[in-house]
Amino acid sequence: MILVKLGGSVITDKARPLTPRRASIRALASALAGLREPVIAVHGGGSFGHYWSVRHDMHTRADEYDARGVATVKDSMARLGAIVTGALLRAGASPYPLAPSSIMRRTRADTAAIRDMARVAEAGWMPVTYGDALWAGGRRSFILSGDRIMSMVALAVRPRLCVFALNADGVYSDPSSREVVPEMRAGQGVSTGDAGMDVTGGMARKLAESARIARAGIDVFVVNGNRPGRITAAVAGKGHQGTLIRGRRVGGRAARSS
Amino acid sequence: MILVKLGGSVITDKARPLTPRRASIRALASALAGLREPVIAVHGGGSFGHYWSVRHDMHTRADEYDARGVATVKDSMARLGAIVTGALLRAGASPYPLAPSSIMRRTRADTAAIRDMARVAEAGWMPVTYGDALWAGGRRSFILSGDRIMSMVALAVRPRLCVFALNADGVYSDPSSREVVPEMRAGQGVSTGDAGMDVTGGMARKLAESARIARAGIDVFVVNGNRPGRITAAVAGKGHQGTLIRGRRVGGRAARSS
Repeated sequence: MILVKLGGSVITDKARPLTPRRASIRALASALAGLREPVIAVHGGGSFGHYWSVRHDMHTRADEYDARGVATVKDSMARLGAIVTGALLRAGASPYPLAPSSIMRRTRADTAAIRDMARVAEAGWMPVTYGDALWAGGRRSFILSGDRIMSMVALAVRPRLCVFALNADGVYSDPSSREVVPEMRAGQGVSTGDAGMDVTGGMARKLAESARIARAGIDVFVVNGNRPGRITAAVAGKGHQGTLIRGRRVGGRAARSS
Repeated sequence: MILVKLGGSVITDKARPLTPRRASIRALASALAGLREPVIAVHGGGSFGHYWSVRHDMHTRADEYDARGVATVKDSMARLGAIVTGALLRAGASPYPLAPSSIMRRTRADTAAIRDMARVAEAGWMPVTYGDALWAGGRRSFILSGDRIMSMVALAVRPRLCVFALNADGVYSDPSSREVVPEMRAGQGVSTGDAGMDVTGGMARKLAESARIARAGIDVFVVNGNRPGRITAAVAGKGHQGTLIRGRRVGGRAARSS
């Protein structure tokens, strides 16, 4: 099982509201459709949901945000989701869109539903979910980031590899030099060259979620999503052109499933 | 609470594949956005999901249907769903799209999730769900019809009124005369003038689900979805221009909530 995050900064033009990067989406869809093992895909909001969440001052903390803002974020994410699943379908895959409300119980992960998502992948479909605005009870709502979904799903289904496809060549040792760290361990101090902070925590959140996954013994590969061949190569065991964050071994061996 | 089904034959042109009837969708969205009480909306697949389910020979019975067929139905329904929620958003409502995978556990209704859907409606959003193809375990899948969703949701949340907006003036006493039965009781023998059978059971299924709801003591109003003002009038207590199926009274009084 491979769990892949398609970053909002890769699949959309974050500088232009509601603008998908269709060529990037097509190329990534083609790479994912060609993988020879079960895949679960998660994507970010970029200039769709992320754009609206900023406009409506919505955050990952549950609060009484504007009801119209919640509806607008959800509507835009449903549209971006349809663009991604449409591209996967045309690339020859059998995507199985699963809005995040299908794998959450209000603010908590629905572990049984997430495990079913893995079974859907094993049966030959490619489950696709995404960051979104979600109801939290009463009049409260919250933003669930795609990065948070990655660690939720990774911990529940223990994929062989988690891939974060973003708009940078990997994790940089120093943002100014843009020198990629080829391999690191969970918790090592780092930075990336992807564009700054955003409502869902930006790079800090991305690295925190990656570290959470790696600490659970699962390898994380941070790769440039504009070079989908690097994902194909990494999954095929032909090297990691990006940053490989080794899952922490417990008792001398990896605590992971196939 | 009002539970409304927007028929696939109203919101799409069933004679032309993948063709939404945008003016009808806008008019219905405007009527629903103007209702002064909580609303849950369900819509059918029409020339989107229904079209593809016929092409791929998929049915309501769980079986090992073509995986690409499942993906294609789901992709088309996500697109139609986005058209409906987009129209509701522009009409001033705060739609809360909830793909049916969010309210099902494989082939069974997830009653807790359906009750949460009602709470989302009571908090000011308008939950919107739809008929779709769903995973049933293993390599099996099934078609969940919008009509089936109606009875599932009605029995779980007991709305004040269920509305079936379809492409006919109501239930006809005889299809040839097109004489509308103004009021009837659950189980009374009837027919409608809406176009024939379809994969999800067509009119027979629609009336069976209506009867199931009415037998539970909930009023069902069958109305022409091309005349959204009739929905507004019925909800406002200004008469039922269509067919009102009275919920069966238990012990002399209605067994329903507000």
